[in-house]
Amino acid sequence: MVAASTRPVIALAMGDPAGISPELTAKALALPEVREAADFVVFGDARVLAAGARAAGVEPDVEVRRAFDHHVAAGSRPVFVDLGHLDPASVAAGKATRAGGEFALTNFRMALQLAAAGDAGAVCFTPFNKAAMRAAHPGYDDEIGYASEVLGTTGPASEFNIVDGLWNARVTSHVPLSAVASTLNRERIVDAIRLTDRSLREAGVASPRIAVAALNPHAGDGGNFGREEIDMIGPAVGDVRREGIRAEGPYPSDTIFVRAGGGSYDAVVTMYHDQGQIAMKLLGFDRGVTLMGGFPFPIATPAHGTAYDIVGRGVANVGATRAALLLAARMAAARRSRAGRAG
Amino acid sequence: MVAASTRPVIALAMGDPAGISPELTAKALALPEVREAADFVVFGDARVLAAGARAAGVEPDVEVRRAFDHHVAAGSRPVFVDLGHLDPASVAAGKATRAGGEFALTNFRMALQLAAAGDAGAVCFTPFNKAAMRAAHPGYDDEIGYASEVLGTTGPASEFNIVDGLWNARVTSHVPLSAVASTLNRERIVDAIRLTDRSLREAGVASPRIAVAALNPHAGDGGNFGREEIDMIGPAVGDVRREGIRAEGPYPSDTIFVRAGGGSYDAVVTMYHDQGQIAMKLLGFDRGVTLMGGFPFPIATPAHGTAYDIVGRGVANVGATRAALLLAARMAAARRSRAGRAG
Repeated sequence: MVAASTRPVIALAMGDPAGISPELTAKALALPEVREAADFVVFGDARVLAAGARAAGVEPDVEVRRAFDHHVAAGSRPVFVDLGHLDPASVAAGKATRAGGEFALTNFRMALQLAAAGDAGAVCFTPFNKAAMRAAHPGYDDEIGYASEVLGTTGPASEFNIVDGLWNARVTSHVPLSAVASTLNRERIVDAIRLTDRSLREAGVASPRIAVAALNPHAGDGGNFGREEIDMIGPAVGDVRREGIRAEGPYPSDTIFVRAGGGSYDAVVTMYHDQGQIAMKLLGFDRGVTLMGGFPFPIATPAHGTAYDIVGRGVANVGATRAALLLAARMAAARRSRAGRAG
Repeated sequence: MVAASTRPVIALAMGDPAGISPELTAKALALPEVREAADFVVFGDARVLAAGARAAGVEPDVEVRRAFDHHVAAGSRPVFVDLGHLDPASVAAGKATRAGGEFALTNFRMALQLAAAGDAGAVCFTPFNKAAMRAAHPGYDDEIGYASEVLGTTGPASEFNIVDGLWNARVTSHVPLSAVASTLNRERIVDAIRLTDRSLREAGVASPRIAVAALNPHAGDGGNFGREEIDMIGPAVGDVRREGIRAEGPYPSDTIFVRAGGGSYDAVVTMYHDQGQIAMKLLGFDRGVTLMGGFPFPIATPAHGTAYDIVGRGVANVGATRAALLLAARMAAARRSRAGRAG
């Protein structure tokens, strides 16, 4: 460590090279408010960044390094670690390839390792393409699985979606709808609410207000259309309330987002994937951030994908990437001030 | 029948007297565009209407009749059939009572019977309170069940939710989430898409574009998180396409409403209650209309409820009631021009 900056350090991995990730990386690194919020160590290939910068019409001022030990001093420009592992001339725009997956995977792994070593306080990445990731690494299931693998973590990890300050966490995720009810139980619901409360506090919300969604239509209508509200969700809310968590519910899921979007809650904990995703995408598809919680440091990325259909045209909206980087910076700064150490 | 109007006739039932229904009835009947769109036969108590008009600060010009045979000639004022069955002084604001339920139920039954006799082309009602309806009629399950009972219909009936021209129909409704997958089958999905197509055509959409939602997250991700997309939803879409219906899908439910809300589709057919309701309530809680399809005539109502919390203050938003009445008028006019007969 050369010198301790007063700012947090974010390790940023360039995502899939065939989509809008190179443009977004370049655009975000050119934003004054982003450069102001943190010191950056960016992993990628300088030629891919240059191609993205050209497409985006920006010239991000970065310090390119071929080798990388530890990050540089405060106030410096973002450090771009040029791994020299992908020639953009070999990348077909809008195509998921194994080479593209290997590029993104290497960047992500190095960013995770930098944070694991204590030299960054948060990890961010521009969008990955899941098919490309799987082509490069057949065991690749999702970002949470891969991060757990790299970091050797085994605790409960969970994905949050965030739009305009409203967080959504879910108790079950990539399971068939027919398996949702049988996958739920009181402990899992309690764990999800606790992790949501803790993560919101880490993001600077002093006393998070958490709404818990029901599973069944009309919250089961008093047991007429399902009993999970009575048998497990209600009791789980009671459990966490006794710990001092400001959770409420279960509330019917078709109205809770109308209220939460109006500012009544900081987070909604939903029981299954689409229950939250339908609402969050309507509340702000372009601005949404995905945050992975339950790791030793925050991992954030824009919620949208690689947008293969608009690649290279410079029209990609940097809003969600900007929001992801600023959230990560805020969380990393708060962690550092709590821990009283760098990173 | 005294004379045939060129306008359709709508039978309008006053809803629960303890909520905002009296205000909404009075407000809607005072709107020039509503009075222009149809001839009205309104069922209620003139004293309850007068109380609603006072609360709403309007003076709807109606022709009050104590007895009613058939509706009056074109160009006339709305006919208000004063059943004299409820003194508003006996109604506690914001309380669901058996008397309130009996009032609404009688109005609804008479409106349905008028339309069944061919003397109205559509039925509308201002919001009911389900607890009050059940107190008055223990077998009352929902509006569809009661209308089927009064009309003696047995065919498939379904509820549509409509916001700003976007329709939502669902294949399953008030069932536990755990039972959704086992309740679905190819035939039910086909029936729902067909009914959606037919109802949209009846509402004047010449060639409806219908998106069909998937059941599982990421539309099952190629069978990784559920097979209903492959085994039943996809085949059902194929079935109706061979009949010439412009259906597409199955599409992931977390993005289809973003696209449909942008105008790409006229309707989204969802597999379960909250899948559609989460989206529709976010798209326009105050403007939503509920339409019951599958009956011999359209039955429409505002999607919102009795709003017991704001009763009597004159602040109730008439937008959804207005939209329900105008939709019913459009559908009744189209049916009449097709059938070449009155009503």
